[in-house]
Amino acid sequence: MNGAAPIAITMGDPAGIGPELTSKAWLSRKNHDLPPFVYIGCPEALKILPNYPPFKIISNLDDCVKTFENFLPVLEISTTSPITLGTLNKANSLAVVEAIKRGVNLTLAKECRALVTGPIQKSSLYDVGFKFAGHTGFLADLTATPPDQTVMMLASPELKVVPVTVHMALKDVASHLTTRKMEITAKVLIKALKEKFGINDPKIAVSALNPHAGEGGAMGQEETSIISPAIEALKKTNINIEGPYSADSLFTTPMRKTYDVALCMYHDQALIPLKTLDFQNGVNITLGIPIIRTSPDHGTALNIAGLDMANIGSMIAAIKMADQMSQNDA
Amino acid sequence: MNGAAPIAITMGDPAGIGPELTSKAWLSRKNHDLPPFVYIGCPEALKILPNYPPFKIISNLDDCVKTFENFLPVLEISTTSPITLGTLNKANSLAVVEAIKRGVNLTLAKECRALVTGPIQKSSLYDVGFKFAGHTGFLADLTATPPDQTVMMLASPELKVVPVTVHMALKDVASHLTTRKMEITAKVLIKALKEKFGINDPKIAVSALNPHAGEGGAMGQEETSIISPAIEALKKTNINIEGPYSADSLFTTPMRKTYDVALCMYHDQALIPLKTLDFQNGVNITLGIPIIRTSPDHGTALNIAGLDMANIGSMIAAIKMADQMSQNDA
Repeated sequence: MNGAAPIAITMGDPAGIGPELTSKAWLSRKNHDLPPFVYIGCPEALKILPNYPPFKIISNLDDCVKTFENFLPVLEISTTSPITLGTLNKANSLAVVEAIKRGVNLTLAKECRALVTGPIQKSSLYDVGFKFAGHTGFLADLTATPPDQTVMMLASPELKVVPVTVHMALKDVASHLTTRKMEITAKVLIKALKEKFGINDPKIAVSALNPHAGEGGAMGQEETSIISPAIEALKKTNINIEGPYSADSLFTTPMRKTYDVALCMYHDQALIPLKTLDFQNGVNITLGIPIIRTSPDHGTALNIAGLDMANIGSMIAAIKMADQMSQNDA
Repeated sequence: MNGAAPIAITMGDPAGIGPELTSKAWLSRKNHDLPPFVYIGCPEALKILPNYPPFKIISNLDDCVKTFENFLPVLEISTTSPITLGTLNKANSLAVVEAIKRGVNLTLAKECRALVTGPIQKSSLYDVGFKFAGHTGFLADLTATPPDQTVMMLASPELKVVPVTVHMALKDVASHLTTRKMEITAKVLIKALKEKFGINDPKIAVSALNPHAGEGGAMGQEETSIISPAIEALKKTNINIEGPYSADSLFTTPMRKTYDVALCMYHDQALIPLKTLDFQNGVNITLGIPIIRTSPDHGTALNIAGLDMANIGSMIAAIKMADQMSQNDA
């Protein structure tokens, strides 16, 4: 890993708050002690911001770190269509996708040491061949990673969570939860905690699926038939894992002190406690792919794009997390 | 309502921490400025505690308030079987049920002004004809309330939540959620917020069922087919209600300031944020029945019964909430 290499930040959808977040991050680089990064996207998406920073289009990354001192370095992705803040324009979708591809390739080639992705609007991308539920599937595809080996982690200073099932209707969760899926997720997670987070003996706490952890089968069987067998199998491989715990008791202050990551059964079970505890500094992290990738834990926020209102807490946290992970991984 | 009437506290299962909580509450009555209450249960369950307070068995409630100054007043429910802290004994189940019946009847007769119930172990009660999923169903039965009119609210200083569906497996939630059930729940809730909580124009925020509020149908249809129609119908009756909001955004600090109660679609969706924010001071409140009933928001905690370790925060909060609600309702 090239410690001097910059972090790549993709613009995300130029109609959303992605470019604004990158701009604000650069403007506050000294306050937040941020490492050098490069913006991969359309310069036009910066120019239409009410307060955009001095930027310099660069053709390669050789001078990026030096440029970063006085200018936001930009690797240009061109678009031929106008950008209107707050209004999606599908004519720009190819540029959105191209920025991600370029960011991934530079990170795979170690010209960048980590990737931070700006928020995208999936619905706007399907017309240009994007066929994934979100960034994660696309990143798996671009890095030739089997999709079932990718794991989404959400992290804040208070809590780290990993949902075993992710983007599906609540009614479909139980039928998608399998012992095998839990085992794969836990193994990817443990590896990342050791290699990317510097935790020698990571401890995982597993949530139940059903209220009161199923209350001995009275309110659901999955604890007995799926979750506990996975925990037992993982324990046999010397993984430090306990549960299933009632989900409503797992995130209390004393419980949070007993584990490194909560392995949750579905999206909202993981995201509710994370955002309840800290709604501004959450970071989304993709584990299991051969690059380090983080992102702010929010969407394009079209309703406030261009109003200079976007809070940069999550973007700052995403950059710092990418920085820290790449140092641990060095 | 008789403002001078005491609050009734039922012992719950005598093998659990219920009697200890009542004892500790009485011992700290001055510190916490608690109103007079009477313990309804077995005196033996007090006597086996390591630190039990002076108590006096009373035959009626006439002198209860005066007695409370120097003794824990006790309305005796006798049992013929030994009580072992931490070990359930089904021979005492009739006494557990009898204490609840007596508490309800005294509160219905306004000899007590509110009911606080100690934690029970349902599995231990089924043999004596108890046929309910918990206290709530039993209280509905004892007060001749249609079960679908009872509503469970959980309250802490930070947050009030009401789950529309309650004790069922997660996979069954979607099929049990109906527009009618949401409307009934919201109406019971609004009435209680006005009459028992003194809120003139209560504001309800409704959570979505699916992640990202279903993302326009891509991850579940219930927002469109069930939840939004209920909200629209309720708005037409001048109820101040908004949603559905993504569940992971509903409990952030700024969002919590915008509503009085979050109407949630299932148990853990409501309980996770409540306990994450404050795991010691949650109160369980039954709305829709003709008496005021609260309880500590935890179980019998058999593993710590008799060890003098039980935290009284939730019991103190339950007594104070019952006190406040009965004053608002006066």
